Amino acid sequence: MDSETVIFAAETGSFEMRKPELLERRNAKWRQYPSDVIPAFVADMDFRIAPAIQRAIQHSVEAFDYGYPMRDGGKADRAVASAFVNRMKNVCGWDVAEAQVLVLADLVQAIYASVMAFSDPGDGVIVQMPSYPPFRDAIATTGRTCVPLTMQATDRSYVFDLEALEATVDANTKIFMLCNPQNPTGRAFTRDELLEVLAFVEKHDLIVISDEIHSDLVYHGTRHIPFASLSPSAAARTVTLNSATKSFNIPGLRCAVAYFGTEELMQRFHKRIPVRLIGSVNSIGIDATVAAWTEAQPWLDEVLNHLKEMRDHVVATLRREIPGIRFQVPDATYLIWLDCSDLGIEGSAFDFFLERARIGFSPGEAFHPECEKFVRMNFATSKPILDEMLDRMITAVRSNRR
Amino acid sequence: MDSETVIFAAETGSFEMRKPELLERRNAKWRQYPSDVIPAFVADMDFRIAPAIQRAIQHSVEAFDYGYPMRDGGKADRAVASAFVNRMKNVCGWDVAEAQVLVLADLVQAIYASVMAFSDPGDGVIVQMPSYPPFRDAIATTGRTCVPLTMQATDRSYVFDLEALEATVDANTKIFMLCNPQNPTGRAFTRDELLEVLAFVEKHDLIVISDEIHSDLVYHGTRHIPFASLSPSAAARTVTLNSATKSFNIPGLRCAVAYFGTEELMQRFHKRIPVRLIGSVNSIGIDATVAAWTEAQPWLDEVLNHLKEMRDHVVATLRREIPGIRFQVPDATYLIWLDCSDLGIEGSAFDFFLERARIGFSPGEAFHPECEKFVRMNFATSKPILDEMLDRMITAVRSNRR
Repeated sequence: MDSETVIFAAETGSFEMRKPELLERRNAKWRQYPSDVIPAFVADMDFRIAPAIQRAIQHSVEAFDYGYPMRDGGKADRAVASAFVNRMKNVCGWDVAEAQVLVLADLVQAIYASVMAFSDPGDGVIVQMPSYPPFRDAIATTGRTCVPLTMQATDRSYVFDLEALEATVDANTKIFMLCNPQNPTGRAFTRDELLEVLAFVEKHDLIVISDEIHSDLVYHGTRHIPFASLSPSAAARTVTLNSATKSFNIPGLRCAVAYFGTEELMQRFHKRIPVRLIGSVNSIGIDATVAAWTEAQPWLDEVLNHLKEMRDHVVATLRREIPGIRFQVPDATYLIWLDCSDLGIEGSAFDFFLERARIGFSPGEAFHPECEKFVRMNFATSKPILDEMLDRMITAVRSNRR
Repeated sequence: MDSETVIFAAETGSFEMRKPELLERRNAKWRQYPSDVIPAFVADMDFRIAPAIQRAIQHSVEAFDYGYPMRDGGKADRAVASAFVNRMKNVCGWDVAEAQVLVLADLVQAIYASVMAFSDPGDGVIVQMPSYPPFRDAIATTGRTCVPLTMQATDRSYVFDLEALEATVDANTKIFMLCNPQNPTGRAFTRDELLEVLAFVEKHDLIVISDEIHSDLVYHGTRHIPFASLSPSAAARTVTLNSATKSFNIPGLRCAVAYFGTEELMQRFHKRIPVRLIGSVNSIGIDATVAAWTEAQPWLDEVLNHLKEMRDHVVATLRREIPGIRFQVPDATYLIWLDCSDLGIEGSAFDFFLERARIGFSPGEAFHPECEKFVRMNFATSKPILDEMLDRMITAVRSNRR
């Protein structure tokens, strides 16, 4: 091992945390359930954060640097905007304008704000189903109408049928909520699929709210395609949402971006949602995000390698040991959407695994009211914990058969 | 010195920071101007934060505890709500209901949200003048109309004239923005004054947005009186805004509360402003706020002693050396509102002191368009820095006379 390798290992290795350390954390993942339950629900990874991020945080802590923050001679949130511009250029080959980046606390906030800015009560909002629950909450809470676009399972993948959607869309439909990569199915859509969506939204003159928070977590080395990067016309109608909190594992630090494809779109947004209604973002979240996007790629590469191994391990083990569970191999995300309809479970799959296997998955019905026999599994953990989880699943399913 | 005293000193003393340390900070206060300028503008103190707060932050940092936070078995923001309930009870003798505490990023956000929730475009909003600039921005940006209530200087104090206000209030006036203690005048209103405001808002059926962020920084040992604590009728129409960020010097960590005096008032707010439009608060700001409100009072007591000394020093020095500057002794806040109209300054007082004394005050015209000959001075610094600032003021004013 030459010295460069050693440095690299010190920088990126050893991110896996053991159970005693995890139990020290005061996060929802490890505190929601009694300690005999293995949590696999909320999108939080059982990993130490990147050393570069930790250093950025410690820098502020050591200097008692908690004042109104400035960075690089300007307002601190502009450092996040600038880091986003550079990252989109370097990672996706996409040119974005710094002035059109709004920095805010989280994606759910951005979704509520965008729904309120670009539609009125009663208007329709298209949402892929199953979906991350706050999407539908944003539609219901603001008095908009949900127009579902079903993700259909084929033998190899989850696909959507825009022709079928035509029947449910009308002049009151104003927004297409795109989640790419999609949560919970793990689909990373192809350019052709995205172009189909573009033709659809152009035909119906829809605004696109594109949640791309899982864009760093794509396997196969395929590059993420931001929807707004498809064409100037796509950009002009799209609010792109992203954050370092998911892929760099800092959700508690609350920092995200909403990117408006044109100045006009941003102005239209701010007519209803003044910038200061959004609230300022905290300095620790800002520094952590900048460090993530500018210095922490080596850590993320290592984590992705590990996640891919864990994904493949889950896939191979479930296929071999519990063939009754149906699923597609996720293209992206550390989440897998498990259809347990054929297991002969009474009640919900979530309750079954919680009671019989002491595993806390995300309940399928939270993502789709009809998916009570599904669970969403988070496999972003260490191999020993994942193995224990798989063993418990196998045992519970086998004992259920008898 | 017995051992208890030593512990106390270690816990609370040595909060003053020297200039080299301050220049290391990446906050607006020390980065906005070239290093030869002494900054005395933004409400940020040149002090190290309380050890209890620092420990709370370090606890998370050492455990890599940046996940979706839970505290005390519930959502982390509820720990802030609970700490606020206890503090209001202990410090102000005021009973508040935890369920009516909304935790958000900052007071300006809360002001925008409350203006949007409780009035419509075109409606009038009463604001004390001079005022913290974002108050008037919130009114203008959201298309409401500013109804000014002038803070009039008497020989001893700043007072307001509600009888005169009657002439400018009409059926479209919906909100009374109260700032108590008032920024920039430093007035902490008496119970009688607050009761007058209450009679006024009851007569005109107004909602009160009461910014009480300086409530911890009252001198003379008089207890702060929350406006909503005056009576159930006051509570029913009041949104009380507070935060630990000002008095405990952690503005970059972004955590504040809006307290609704009744469930009905909170529901009315959320009809227009869904809770998730507000965004979640970061875990570091949450822990810091809880530590501030529950463990950091000894530090605050020491800081208040120091601030009172600095206030008295400014007052005595200016009276003796620059009698042409008129001001009232602030009852509260570490800010003093200096009327420099009699100094014969050409142009603004802000420009004069920036150019001739290399001091960065807050410009008076930011608080009131007619107050170009005023500056707001922040005296929350160490004695050596304050002395240098006073010396520079004296020299600049004397050289201007010649």
